[in-house]
Amino acid sequence: MSAVLKMEECREHVRTQLDTVVDFWLKYSHDTVHGGFFTCIGRDGTVYDELKYVWLQGRQVWMYCRLYRTMDRFHKPEILEAAKAGGEFLRKFARVSTSSGQWKCAFCLTRDGKAVKIQRTIFSECFYIMAMDELSRTTGDKDMQLEAEQMMEQLIYWVRVDSSGLGRPQLPGDVATNSMAIPMMLLCLVQQLTEGRGQEVVQKYRELGRWCVQQILQHMQRDGTAILENVSLDGQELPGCQGRLQNPGHALEAGWFLIQYSAEWGDDDLQRTAIDKFVELPYQNGWDKEHGGLFYFLDVDGHCPTQLEWSMKLWWPHCEALIAFLMAYSQTKKPELLDRFSQVYEYTFSHFPDAKSGEWFGYLTQEGKVALDFKGGPFKGFFHVPRCLYMCERILDDLLANKD
Amino acid sequence: MSAVLKMEECREHVRTQLDTVVDFWLKYSHDTVHGGFFTCIGRDGTVYDELKYVWLQGRQVWMYCRLYRTMDRFHKPEILEAAKAGGEFLRKFARVSTSSGQWKCAFCLTRDGKAVKIQRTIFSECFYIMAMDELSRTTGDKDMQLEAEQMMEQLIYWVRVDSSGLGRPQLPGDVATNSMAIPMMLLCLVQQLTEGRGQEVVQKYRELGRWCVQQILQHMQRDGTAILENVSLDGQELPGCQGRLQNPGHALEAGWFLIQYSAEWGDDDLQRTAIDKFVELPYQNGWDKEHGGLFYFLDVDGHCPTQLEWSMKLWWPHCEALIAFLMAYSQTKKPELLDRFSQVYEYTFSHFPDAKSGEWFGYLTQEGKVALDFKGGPFKGFFHVPRCLYMCERILDDLLANKD
Repeated sequence: MSAVLKMEECREHVRTQLDTVVDFWLKYSHDTVHGGFFTCIGRDGTVYDELKYVWLQGRQVWMYCRLYRTMDRFHKPEILEAAKAGGEFLRKFARVSTSSGQWKCAFCLTRDGKAVKIQRTIFSECFYIMAMDELSRTTGDKDMQLEAEQMMEQLIYWVRVDSSGLGRPQLPGDVATNSMAIPMMLLCLVQQLTEGRGQEVVQKYRELGRWCVQQILQHMQRDGTAILENVSLDGQELPGCQGRLQNPGHALEAGWFLIQYSAEWGDDDLQRTAIDKFVELPYQNGWDKEHGGLFYFLDVDGHCPTQLEWSMKLWWPHCEALIAFLMAYSQTKKPELLDRFSQVYEYTFSHFPDAKSGEWFGYLTQEGKVALDFKGGPFKGFFHVPRCLYMCERILDDLLANKD
Repeated sequence: MSAVLKMEECREHVRTQLDTVVDFWLKYSHDTVHGGFFTCIGRDGTVYDELKYVWLQGRQVWMYCRLYRTMDRFHKPEILEAAKAGGEFLRKFARVSTSSGQWKCAFCLTRDGKAVKIQRTIFSECFYIMAMDELSRTTGDKDMQLEAEQMMEQLIYWVRVDSSGLGRPQLPGDVATNSMAIPMMLLCLVQQLTEGRGQEVVQKYRELGRWCVQQILQHMQRDGTAILENVSLDGQELPGCQGRLQNPGHALEAGWFLIQYSAEWGDDDLQRTAIDKFVELPYQNGWDKEHGGLFYFLDVDGHCPTQLEWSMKLWWPHCEALIAFLMAYSQTKKPELLDRFSQVYEYTFSHFPDAKSGEWFGYLTQEGKVALDFKGGPFKGFFHVPRCLYMCERILDDLLANKD
């Protein structure tokens, strides 16, 4: 079969998968009584817990809007209404005032919106911002865009000026670290808030975008042979397990954020670094040569990680790898990057999708057996799978449209 | 082979195992520079992280003292000195003053004693108390006993009067729950603080002990067919995953605490409940009929738990099961309880001990393969394995001494 035919077949498969996944969440996740989305959804669609996780509320609003706004076949009232209802639920309930007078978002809410838990991190706020910005683009609501930007100011203050508002006690042994997740999420938000907007907004976040890229690049360690998840604020390796931790999925996700950034700013050096060090390297270090699939965590010196799930195969690193390799190929046309994409594609589609009830399993053993069979849980919602399928479909569309 | 011969063989094995385990920690875990114990120890004894986890510092002090004080062959200066050095490290560094003016213990310290993390729970304090009380018994230091009792007052205040000193924000959706770990640990501490002490101390904690027993019994749910890990404050089942969670290891551990309590107070009804509901039932519900071993977590309605490690086989539930069944047998002489002990014994000793480098592996896959190969980590130290071997050896000593 020719490469083009294979690519067309792949696009058809990805498109069908995306339709199935969207159908699953439209059918099972909407809470028509209290608003917002159920996120704990069993294999067959049963809601097994009514708690509403805020990361996942924000991500689902974002994903619905993105699909509605940019793909004709999802430009349906049903999807718009669901996104708006989710956004309303978030605005009404997610923000919890803290003692310091700053707005924190809860991590988890009851079905009717009462705060159950607040994390001392920035991620609930990140997904709140993503939701509000994307919803404002969909509905044209300028107030909502403003709200997203205001929350963003608060985030930047916590990350770059004073983190005490997050509620962590300052402890003498708890040295400040640069954790991959932080600059990666902020870069994602910069791209979200600026994409297609005027020069004023682009300029407003330009320095922050550069700073995020520099912070991400600091995770390249050991003469460029490893991406480490946590480094010191001045970019040095940290002692102990924390310092040696590798999270291939995060590195790959940062990788395609960097490829996007390098394309936007025409930075070829950065593109090369992104592909060699944040896409190819995590794959080389993180792929399980025995059983296939990407490990969740690894220790760069080969010690056993202390995370009990280190050897499990999770859906989201595979989603990120698919996007990263396909995007890297689309930017460079290097055939070896398409080969990698095919390898990850084969493992992913032969292991994660549930042919019986739709959607994907999220958690496999090292050997590839389904270890947890729910479709939605505290950290798995309508996000990584549809975002991956959406990104891949669009890149494949471009590749096929521009084929010789 | 006769039952007595089998029991003698078993005692020899347990005794040899205990010697090996004690040797391992004496050899690899002592920090002779900064005091305290290394707790992150690899398969072969290598320290792979210098962080010092406070639960494990306290537990190691307790275990060394208990061995020194009650078993002739461990009445050695080396063990006493290590216990004292550990106690000194704890007293010097574990207590961290919090903004509310109450003493909190850190969860984790740097090698030289700087606080890295504080949990918003009571468990660091629990193991601090266990260490101080047992050390005071070993050295005769009355101030230390007083310190343990003072810390205990603080704990009781947090659990029964006002938990705000723990630092958790009060959230409208976060309903107060009775989690098994709390009354179980407090009952353990009551037994620790009162054992062999005068009537004044016994009376001081008598009401608390009764309260703990009542709180533990509230976890018997569904007409006595399941022990649930979390219930409401008035003993009702809670909604969602939290409410349906079963933790067989915890139930079994609570089981042998209850058997001890019922023996102390001559309460035959409680003994029966403890054995039927907190020992036999968690074994029935928690044993993996396909691969053997006890699951870590289960959902009482058969949903998939959201804990990624739910199906793994951990060392400590097996340690607790061995103690629970042997103690239950020693109190009742019912042969079926000895059969259960033998079954758990066979799985445990054929899977967890590391014949090559000594000590036990802690974390196996559902199928029984070693998933994490370290001997010590953030939650595995010198505690469950030696406590189990110590308790079993002593019970077997009694059984063999009193055989007809």
